Amino acid sequence: MLPAGKHVREVYTDAGGVLESVGGKTLLIDCSTIDVDSARAVANAASEKGLQMLDAPVSGGVAGAENAALTFMVGGDAEAFDCGKAILECMGKAVIHAGPAGNGQVAKACNNMLLGISMAGLAEAFTLAERQGLDPQTLFDISSKASGMSWAMLNHLPVPDIVETSAANRNWKPGFAAGMMLKDLRLAQDAAAKGEVSTPMGALACALYQMFVNGGNGDLDYSAIIKMVQGEKPEA
Amino acid sequence: MLPAGKHVREVYTDAGGVLESVGGKTLLIDCSTIDVDSARAVANAASEKGLQMLDAPVSGGVAGAENAALTFMVGGDAEAFDCGKAILECMGKAVIHAGPAGNGQVAKACNNMLLGISMAGLAEAFTLAERQGLDPQTLFDISSKASGMSWAMLNHLPVPDIVETSAANRNWKPGFAAGMMLKDLRLAQDAAAKGEVSTPMGALACALYQMFVNGGNGDLDYSAIIKMVQGEKPEA
Amino acid sequence: MLPAGKHVREVYTDAGGVLESVGGKTLLIDCSTIDVDSARAVANAASEKGLQMLDAPVSGGVAGAENAALTFMVGGDAEAFDCGKAILECMGKAVIHAGPAGNGQVAKACNNMLLGISMAGLAEAFTLAERQGLDPQTLFDISSKASGMSWAMLNHLPVPDIVETSAANRNWKPGFAAGMMLKDLRLAQDAAAKGEVSTPMGALACALYQMFVNGGNGDLDYSAIIKMVQGEKPEA
Amino acid sequence: MLPAGKHVREVYTDAGGVLESVGGKTLLIDCSTIDVDSARAVANAASEKGLQMLDAPVSGGVAGAENAALTFMVGGDAEAFDCGKAILECMGKAVIHAGPAGNGQVAKACNNMLLGISMAGLAEAFTLAERQGLDPQTLFDISSKASGMSWAMLNHLPVPDIVETSAANRNWKPGFAAGMMLKDLRLAQDAAAKGEVSTPMGALACALYQMFVNGGNGDLDYSAIIKMVQGEKPEA
Repeated sequence: MLPAGKHVREVYTDAGGVLESVGGKTLLIDCSTIDVDSARAVANAASEKGLQMLDAPVSGGVAGAENAALTFMVGGDAEAFDCGKAILECMGKAVIHAGPAGNGQVAKACNNMLLGISMAGLAEAFTLAERQGLDPQTLFDISSKASGMSWAMLNHLPVPDIVETSAANRNWKPGFAAGMMLKDLRLAQDAAAKGEVSTPMGALACALYQMFVNGGNGDLDYSAIIKMVQGEKPEA
Repeated sequence: MLPAGKHVREVYTDAGGVLESVGGKTLLIDCSTIDVDSARAVANAASEKGLQMLDAPVSGGVAGAENAALTFMVGGDAEAFDCGKAILECMGKAVIHAGPAGNGQVAKACNNMLLGISMAGLAEAFTLAERQGLDPQTLFDISSKASGMSWAMLNHLPVPDIVETSAANRNWKPGFAAGMMLKDLRLAQDAAAKGEVSTPMGALACALYQMFVNGGNGDLDYSAIIKMVQGEKPEA
Repeated sequence: MLPAGKHVREVYTDAGGVLESVGGKTLLIDCSTIDVDSARAVANAASEKGLQMLDAPVSGGVAGAENAALTFMVGGDAEAFDCGKAILECMGKAVIHAGPAGNGQVAKACNNMLLGISMAGLAEAFTLAERQGLDPQTLFDISSKASGMSWAMLNHLPVPDIVETSAANRNWKPGFAAGMMLKDLRLAQDAAAKGEVSTPMGALACALYQMFVNGGNGDLDYSAIIKMVQGEKPEA
Repeated sequence: MLPAGKHVREVYTDAGGVLESVGGKTLLIDCSTIDVDSARAVANAASEKGLQMLDAPVSGGVAGAENAALTFMVGGDAEAFDCGKAILECMGKAVIHAGPAGNGQVAKACNNMLLGISMAGLAEAFTLAERQGLDPQTLFDISSKASGMSWAMLNHLPVPDIVETSAANRNWKPGFAAGMMLKDLRLAQDAAAKGEVSTPMGALACALYQMFVNGGNGDLDYSAIIKMVQGEKPEA
């Protein structure tokens, strides 16, 4: 797992890199979360050398890794996927084939853009509720069974004492760090720019997380963005 | 159920209105979806006359009403709620007490703001997926069991042939009309303005739905906003 | 000059208020910055009593008032405007007739929405320049003579030592307070909601200023929003 | 002038490219509008070969080019700038040194982001005015001399019959095409992502222009975005 596309390109395609070093039947699996174009470029380079490659970014965070409960979103040939699936299942509870090379990255970018949008929305809605005299527990009781429900609400509600797994219960210790959410939102924006897709909500969520991270909060849980929406600095 | 706060105010508080006409033990239940301040003003006026009143906006749409499967979000005194609950249960599968007068409106505004934000996000994410070569069915299979999941995704996915209840399967016939979603987003913005709450995502979703409705699409299902995101006019 | 529409309505139309108290030939001039509907409602009430009334909100800030250099944007009948113009010119350098009753408010809301959007944009563009190694003075020298130019740039640039009148040179002492900008952006949003107009940029500027004000910065100059964009708390 | 960074990289740095072909005292001037990183990478490659290079993107459009009235924003060493200035002045009325390599691109991205934000704001403000009964000519008369003024308002007002140079007077024939504005807003977003800068307004303007271009309007003037804000398709 490398930080960005340029590192993956270097490690695989540079002189002396992985593609030059491995034998012909090796299956390459890269679990980095990177931009779609880099994932596709490296997979193409591997293919030109007759090597099979999977891009297999994960979700689930540190807890998911420790408990072998990660979700793998996998791009690559069906044959390569069938070959690699058993290995990934040792670390994950869900290993899903998303289509050809790069599609693991596309799936993660789309999914996490939805997550970032949901969390920014939750921060606003629960702040609005409280300012208008509606108890957060009551709003949760209603919306968690109604049309406003989301995974983020059920698992990462940005207010304390309602959802056990919320970082709001542990001084915003991640979980899923704001800096990582920003990275994923940036990757989604990169894919949108390359694909000429309009994403006003995704772009705004990205700008809000950038503002939050620039405020020195990148190591806090991404749900702590509720404090910025409220005009406050989170107390870590 | 009246369209807006001013109508509710007139019907209850004007000369010759409901508050002047009803007997002293009457329980008033108003199911309009209106601004919080109007709901509270009318409830206060009722209280001054010794009358009990509930604001009880619904969600669930036409189908929910026809099947007695509405959700009622109810504001008012606990005593009044206990009294009115049995009546509302004839029409609804969930009747929830949200707190004092006006809180039914707050709950609905917050919940539906979350729904509008989710749908706008889904429109973008599923467009991005498609433009990057990721099959919508595959993204649904992944995200519906992952952190991007939402009620809107499971029930109103804005692409056809995946979720049976999607309006995308029936030429965007509502369901929940875009014009009604706009109304609810406007009410949430009104509550945010009065409560001095910052809601960038909610405000943007509202502006996007206003643009969509102004394009002549107010009678289509709210999920049809995906066509605007894609630069197309929905074919109704 | 009263704070909000409800105060103006009370002072003019309540029992014992201005409309009951003044003689038949009195010209009423109200310089409050309020919502369009309230301005029109009070003007209509005045008209029903045979009184002429102007809504005449100002721009120019404290400095403009002290130097009799305010701009008055005036709504009301042409006849009433001609009558009141000479009085307003004692306090202002520009007294402009914007059309019938309420149009003074519309003009101010539109103008100040443009100003708020410009300032939020300047905050971003000058931050971007600096982070990419472009000196703010150089960007100013280029853009102030090019297509990015705006009144806000020429007069209220949110970086120090370039434009003499910038609040950035005086620890963000207003000038035009962020709380006042927020009020005007809220009024523009109110007019947009009533007029069923989509204003994504205006709505976002409003939400950003609400976030900034909620951070305790309402008494600072509105140009200090650049600090929030950069993730910092302004030092007043 | 090449379309994008990858083309400039190829033309200069590929085998058989410009850097291999030119003699040692040649001054290279590239007038493409491209991403900052590509401009800097090519300039660095030139420098390693002992060549001097300027990035010199222009503004002013087709009319500016035809009339030798372009503005050149130039990045590169002061010595190289002094050498190239006379050449550029043959085509431009303003040739401005923005600092070291790549700064021409930064300056253009920042300036045009301000322009795009201004135009999107104008589209909203003039629509709001009209819907609230304020004549666009009147708003122009007021704001063009007040704090809402911008270069975009004075030169490219998105309503007809007020500003002679507006594309609104000629069925939205560019001028400055929406597709070109989108390109510049994308470049600004790319620079913001690389520089870790939060640009909510710039990001939203970019998403709105992407939506407008995806609607088939990329060849219309960028001021035609007012039609999308109003929910209409521009008639070209």
